[in-house]
Amino acid sequence: MPDEKLPTRAEDFSEWYNQLVLKAQLADYAPVRGCMIVRPYGWALWENIQQALDRRFKATGHQNVAFPLFIPKSFIEKEKHHVEGFSPELAVVTIGGGEELAEPLIVRPTSETIIGHMWSKWIQSYRDLPVLMNQWNSVVRWELRTKLFLRTLEFYWQEGHTAHATREEAVAETTQMLDVYTDFAVSDAAIPVIPGVKSEAEKFAGADVTYAIEAMMGDGRALQAGTSHFLGQNFAQAFDVKYLDQNGALQHCWTTSWGLSTRFIGAIIMVHGDDQGLVLPPKLAPTQVVIVPIFKTDEEKATVFKSAKELKAQLATANLRVTLDEREGFSPGWKFNDWEMRGVPLRVELGPKDVAKQSAMLARRDRPGKEGKTSASLADLPVTIEKLLAEIQQSLFDKALAFRRVNTHETRTYDEFKKAVETGFAFAYWCGNDECEAAIKEETRATMRCIPLDPDAVLGRGDSAGLGTCVHCGKPAKARAVFARAY
Amino acid sequence: MPDEKLPTRAEDFSEWYNQLVLKAQLADYAPVRGCMIVRPYGWALWENIQQALDRRFKATGHQNVAFPLFIPKSFIEKEKHHVEGFSPELAVVTIGGGEELAEPLIVRPTSETIIGHMWSKWIQSYRDLPVLMNQWNSVVRWELRTKLFLRTLEFYWQEGHTAHATREEAVAETTQMLDVYTDFAVSDAAIPVIPGVKSEAEKFAGADVTYAIEAMMGDGRALQAGTSHFLGQNFAQAFDVKYLDQNGALQHCWTTSWGLSTRFIGAIIMVHGDDQGLVLPPKLAPTQVVIVPIFKTDEEKATVFKSAKELKAQLATANLRVTLDEREGFSPGWKFNDWEMRGVPLRVELGPKDVAKQSAMLARRDRPGKEGKTSASLADLPVTIEKLLAEIQQSLFDKALAFRRVNTHETRTYDEFKKAVETGFAFAYWCGNDECEAAIKEETRATMRCIPLDPDAVLGRGDSAGLGTCVHCGKPAKARAVFARAY
Repeated sequence: MPDEKLPTRAEDFSEWYNQLVLKAQLADYAPVRGCMIVRPYGWALWENIQQALDRRFKATGHQNVAFPLFIPKSFIEKEKHHVEGFSPELAVVTIGGGEELAEPLIVRPTSETIIGHMWSKWIQSYRDLPVLMNQWNSVVRWELRTKLFLRTLEFYWQEGHTAHATREEAVAETTQMLDVYTDFAVSDAAIPVIPGVKSEAEKFAGADVTYAIEAMMGDGRALQAGTSHFLGQNFAQAFDVKYLDQNGALQHCWTTSWGLSTRFIGAIIMVHGDDQGLVLPPKLAPTQVVIVPIFKTDEEKATVFKSAKELKAQLATANLRVTLDEREGFSPGWKFNDWEMRGVPLRVELGPKDVAKQSAMLARRDRPGKEGKTSASLADLPVTIEKLLAEIQQSLFDKALAFRRVNTHETRTYDEFKKAVETGFAFAYWCGNDECEAAIKEETRATMRCIPLDPDAVLGRGDSAGLGTCVHCGKPAKARAVFARAY
Repeated sequence: MPDEKLPTRAEDFSEWYNQLVLKAQLADYAPVRGCMIVRPYGWALWENIQQALDRRFKATGHQNVAFPLFIPKSFIEKEKHHVEGFSPELAVVTIGGGEELAEPLIVRPTSETIIGHMWSKWIQSYRDLPVLMNQWNSVVRWELRTKLFLRTLEFYWQEGHTAHATREEAVAETTQMLDVYTDFAVSDAAIPVIPGVKSEAEKFAGADVTYAIEAMMGDGRALQAGTSHFLGQNFAQAFDVKYLDQNGALQHCWTTSWGLSTRFIGAIIMVHGDDQGLVLPPKLAPTQVVIVPIFKTDEEKATVFKSAKELKAQLATANLRVTLDEREGFSPGWKFNDWEMRGVPLRVELGPKDVAKQSAMLARRDRPGKEGKTSASLADLPVTIEKLLAEIQQSLFDKALAFRRVNTHETRTYDEFKKAVETGFAFAYWCGNDECEAAIKEETRATMRCIPLDPDAVLGRGDSAGLGTCVHCGKPAKARAVFARAY
């Protein structure tokens, strides 16, 4: 409810986030520690994210499937790095139907192992490849410090899993899906992201290479918004996933996996939100346009509602997601605040004078106050609104990109580096050693986010300096990487 | 793979079903006892079911949400009948993050309890009502005897949950959702169902009244295909779900829940399937039309493929779900069998002579052999196919309804009754007592499926006989009920 004000982002970004998630009714805390309830408004946003991604997955040949929630404990133990990474985070079912189980069952933290097991049955020949699968589900990781959407014990996501005949095809799939995530983030969520390679220390437990998209939040911290893993033959060997090639020789498959979760909702909140509440990108907003009727007398009410209902039908026909706020007992001002809190991109204010003039007042969520207001004729409204929503979508992206670039610093010295990660990203040369990475983390709380695939895109300008020396140890650099404090 | 034949339904209906699920690649057995993997073809069917239902749920004002997978053990224990019903079937997490949990967590068997708990926080006033929610997820019940889709440890479903100010509204919601299920079954799945009331013995643990839709499978047995529960104030009292009414008095809410699961896929298989495999209703079939190209020479292949690709694009533009079978190394006959096994409603055969004549041969899955074949001009094909698919949809329903009516017997004597439930449904007078119901079950393996809301619709004709005497004990009947052996 919008009756109490949020703390400003400058005052307390973390508390602004926590309260906003509750006030906008995106989610709530569950009675089980670290779990969340995604409320209707939050789930409608997630459904729009799902559709935007699922369309892309199907267009690239993937099919949805459903593997079980439970995984035999022995499966998790088959891939050495996988078990090391996931063991501390497992939820274990030990009792079923009133009896102690002979082999405990793990509630899936991710599904590479059980999928590997089934592939060893299904895949026989090169004719069966590639196998391109995805599933939408929830997984469980026993996190100790949780925050709604960003880190919860149970979270919702999609996990893609593919098997290929050659290393080259698997690598191409891994980068293709990274591109899919990037395109979704940029085009639909209006979030500029840096696609790149994770360090050995930060990669997925069981992967040869992990790629990720990294985004800058409104407080300058980083958030990993999606990952795509090249798994080499690690899981294929652990689960005996083999195929007969065209020459009749038995080969291990090459596999990938890739995932994007409800944590992405956290990114949308923290990238676009302002001190009044959410600001949702039009392409993903559950409600793109809200019509707020304004009236004093019953007669005015009748006139305004008639026109508002016609308008709603007209906009719905134009495939816009529109809500007419018919709630009784609330003032227009209260409703304005409520929809601002919920981040609806465009508000249509409709009063008796507007109806008389056959016009309406439009107010953009991303430009508060007079600057974002325009009057438009009712006859043209669907076209005007579609144009405005496209402008808002672009404007949100531009603003987020400009913010990221202003708060990303090329750092040559460790002092510059330490200063940069106080408020944003440091783009720095790095020797590539785990020890240096660990020392930097210990000393500055900043982690290596990624080695960008396109370094010039980070700051929007080319760099002719070539490789320098490591910002921490001064040895010759192996890479130029983005470092930041992260969610 | 269609290389090995299925057993016929007459030979072994159960084995026909088991093999068909595997051969049509709808699902497979998981490495965890009693769990299943829903493969791409099965999941695509489920996605079509989901869309058909979700559209109806949203049109009746429901919103999707997500409640956690885990439920504190103490919650399950708060509603007396609920805990009695579900205790033997629970999967229990006792270890999380390497430590024994202070309170064990139940993997949800259904979500009334945790939703009740949250409603007690969210619902304050009559203005907050009704609350109309639904979630798509999976739940776990520790079943001992399992069968793919029909009864698995983990299954996929939707669970609707609503809270209302009055008993009347809650009852109206319960029957509205029963109607939604009936409409879906009839209109989209081409399955005639009998909507009715369950007995006290068969109702949901915690409900005042359970309504269900019951369908007859191809072997004459019954399958409960969806349920809608009027929960009275049972859960509202157990979880303290109250609201301030318009007079300022505190009242308990009235609640409902309703669900339909992947078991419905089992119904589709067993109602429409034949000895050649699946027969899918056009409205739900993942592929509605398959184009099989026929050629001998490379030149013919080029001609046929060019035309087939144009046709595919043309049908896709007409919003038909179409597949072009481009697989190499398989004969047209092998492909015909394969698509028949998978139940694709309509096959388009396209050879060089067809292309020359600008026509194609259409073959209906529901009418094997010459009877189901017609030649049609390519120019008219989208219209011809849409018309044929509508005919197939209707024809499947008519056939299933006729089958049910032929195999449903009005039984006046217990001998007639015992004979009827050998092969189908018995429609019989019943005293309404648990003891008689239990004795009938013990003696005949038939259970009380439901008391039909519209008795005349069961056999398609009115009945002027009024109430008779119980088919088992001879006492005055309280109801006229459908009894059958059931899945």
